[in-house]
Amino acid sequence: MKLTIIGPGLIGGSLAKDLRARGFAKHIIGVDNNSVNAKQAVELGIVDEARPFAEAVKAADVVLVCVPVDVIEKILPSVLDTINSNAVVIDLGSTKSAICKAVEKHPKRKQFVAAHPIAGTENSGPSAAINNLFDNKTCIICEQDLSSKEALSVAQKLFGALKMNLIYMEANEHDIHLAYISHLPHVISFAMVNTVLEAEKDFKSLFNLAGSGFASLTRLAKSSPDMWTPIFRQNSENVINSIDAYISELELFKQLVKKKDSTMLHQMMERSNEVRKVLPADKK
Amino acid sequence: MKLTIIGPGLIGGSLAKDLRARGFAKHIIGVDNNSVNAKQAVELGIVDEARPFAEAVKAADVVLVCVPVDVIEKILPSVLDTINSNAVVIDLGSTKSAICKAVEKHPKRKQFVAAHPIAGTENSGPSAAINNLFDNKTCIICEQDLSSKEALSVAQKLFGALKMNLIYMEANEHDIHLAYISHLPHVISFAMVNTVLEAEKDFKSLFNLAGSGFASLTRLAKSSPDMWTPIFRQNSENVINSIDAYISELELFKQLVKKKDSTMLHQMMERSNEVRKVLPADKK
Repeated sequence: MKLTIIGPGLIGGSLAKDLRARGFAKHIIGVDNNSVNAKQAVELGIVDEARPFAEAVKAADVVLVCVPVDVIEKILPSVLDTINSNAVVIDLGSTKSAICKAVEKHPKRKQFVAAHPIAGTENSGPSAAINNLFDNKTCIICEQDLSSKEALSVAQKLFGALKMNLIYMEANEHDIHLAYISHLPHVISFAMVNTVLEAEKDFKSLFNLAGSGFASLTRLAKSSPDMWTPIFRQNSENVINSIDAYISELELFKQLVKKKDSTMLHQMMERSNEVRKVLPADKK
Repeated sequence: MKLTIIGPGLIGGSLAKDLRARGFAKHIIGVDNNSVNAKQAVELGIVDEARPFAEAVKAADVVLVCVPVDVIEKILPSVLDTINSNAVVIDLGSTKSAICKAVEKHPKRKQFVAAHPIAGTENSGPSAAINNLFDNKTCIICEQDLSSKEALSVAQKLFGALKMNLIYMEANEHDIHLAYISHLPHVISFAMVNTVLEAEKDFKSLFNLAGSGFASLTRLAKSSPDMWTPIFRQNSENVINSIDAYISELELFKQLVKKKDSTMLHQMMERSNEVRKVLPADKK
């Protein structure tokens, strides 16, 4: 299988590593507008060669689109315009509505599969690519009725090779859920770090005080602004709703602290403790 | 050295394990109002024996008070009333102002050292006690001028055996900093889990979708309500200020998402990325 990866960074590079190691891909071509990244992806052995967009897309059996979601939305029609008639295109963006909408009327829509593998780290670029990133994680496929059986089957084999559990839903449903379980947590972490930066002049010495609890909440604040700015833009409505819901919970908590209402504070925390039942151990 | 630990749970039990293993304590007595916990602490070999409060306190060279902060505030005067004239009492509570105030005029105030080792996990009880919990972590000593040199020296040796880095500050300063780096992060995590519980009916299946980013923000929401209710009560003013500052940051972020202001969103996230400089790797 000839694979072309547009954007061989954290996600694209990690896909390349596993798909090569597990025999899914024989030859991998990388496409990256940033020539430093393109060169690095070749040097690190993530891709066999770097080639320009049109050449690389034409040569592929499968094209994986692993760039920020605004770029996916923009280039996806051209990718479909350019592929050969048996090729399959899969995007791996963190939002799905805007991306699906960008190609909903494209004559080659059936050759496209909209996917979101829920895996990642706070790092980015080809040097951030790691093996086994996707093992036993969930991948969401959206609008599967608009993909051909053949294209879906290729995607299923690909995510099967990555040992991912596939689930299916509509794009708008995906974007609502992801606002709560991924986009909001990033907002929470970014805002927390900025709050502490604002409140504490001696930032560095403060962090020396911090325990593992604080550190666990700052990890997502290390995430790439290039990746996250377009996610927040594309999913703005759902993200705003989730932030509003979250602020209401904080206000409620604050009122209970103000009133020193031990009974209700205890109850609210007991409720949060339910997370133990569904996420019993540290999920990595 | 004869050690008495009031509350041999996560903190008290972990202290016992390391202080015994490292030769600081020869004999350890546990005090726990909860007879199940007291029995478990003996069975697990955390303490050599469980004894009633007055007996255990009288017998000790060093008394470590490791109960929830409201209980520390309440029992600390009686602990000082009861100890022998050479003994040292150290509390390990997460707040310091109310605790220091409770004994500021006690005739044996000099025999007391107010400490806060910044280490822990989201678990509690004797079975949560682990080895090496404190290694290379920070311990804050408050109001050290009110402790005798001898008492301070014992505390320094004890925390030295635990391989902790000691820093010194006033109790009110401690409580302000800790509001931002520990109490606020807990509020954030509790409120996030409750937001998702509220928004998503099918809680369990939602969590199956969640990636490691979500999981990293839910860890603190597993913490004990018994421990955290009195922390929020005792440090209510600082906690409220930190929640207010945090809500302001969230509102700002929300407005930028609403306006789809990519430039400012990017700048806010770049600012948060500064946390990479001070917390470069995952701190455990």
